Amino acid sequence: MAVEHPDCAYCAEGDIVAKFGYKVCELPASKVYIFKEQSHPGRCIVAAKWHVAELIDLTPEQRSAYFEDVAKVSQAIHDVYHPDKVNYGAYGDTAGHMHMHLVPKYKGEFEWGGTFEMDPNRKKLTTDEECEAVASKLREAILG
Amino acid sequence: MAVEHPDCAYCAEGDIVAKFGYKVCELPASKVYIFKEQSHPGRCIVAAKWHVAELIDLTPEQRSAYFEDVAKVSQAIHDVYHPDKVNYGAYGDTAGHMHMHLVPKYKGEFEWGGTFEMDPNRKKLTTDEECEAVASKLREAILG
Repeated sequence: MAVEHPDCAYCAEGDIVAKFGYKVCELPASKVYIFKEQSHPGRCIVAAKWHVAELIDLTPEQRSAYFEDVAKVSQAIHDVYHPDKVNYGAYGDTAGHMHMHLVPKYKGEFEWGGTFEMDPNRKKLTTDEECEAVASKLREAILG
Repeated sequence: MAVEHPDCAYCAEGDIVAKFGYKVCELPASKVYIFKEQSHPGRCIVAAKWHVAELIDLTPEQRSAYFEDVAKVSQAIHDVYHPDKVNYGAYGDTAGHMHMHLVPKYKGEFEWGGTFEMDPNRKKLTTDEECEAVASKLREAILG
């Protein structure tokens, strides 16, 4: 079946998403990726399964299911990485497909106490093996 | 009754929250404020009614109720300000009380296409009258 939005990273996946993300798993309302820029160890993206730009475009049922997935991924980040805080950011001014960055923060380390950059470009995983090493731990924690 | 967390802006409110926020209303699971720094017209904070640091500290029922409130406030921002996108950010590394910034973005204007600063300190409302002029429009849209 043809992808309905072939230019959308979260619909088409493949090469477009591979520029910045590596798939962890799918959940009932979302697709989960590690963010290849891992300055914040454990950083993930949770993208809604529906191609909508805005939170308010989700039905109440879709919204509840989506944030249940976000909480599940956050719990896995807590379990695997033991961050001192997890930050959440949904921007996507020009993306057209709702997704949220889950960014673990560690006391005294990079960007502790503030917001976070979209892409600090300090520590990018480049090989599938490096990505899978991170993703597999999270996948196991998410899916059990 | 004594406030349980007297140093927490969202529990104690009063002078602590007045440094950066002005109350719009309360909803079932949250307290809603305009962010006095209004470089992004319509920017709000939605703070959970429970003093918990992390999203995963909410029960599933609390989480659903909280994001229902977030969606309600976002809908009001859309209705009143007609932004081209609303961003969402929950940081609070040192705050201890879960809250989310709802940040309307406008095509070609300040910070369009990126994240947003915590406090750009460009356009701060200073009087209650200025704050109420913004808050009253949102309050009416939220509460009907």
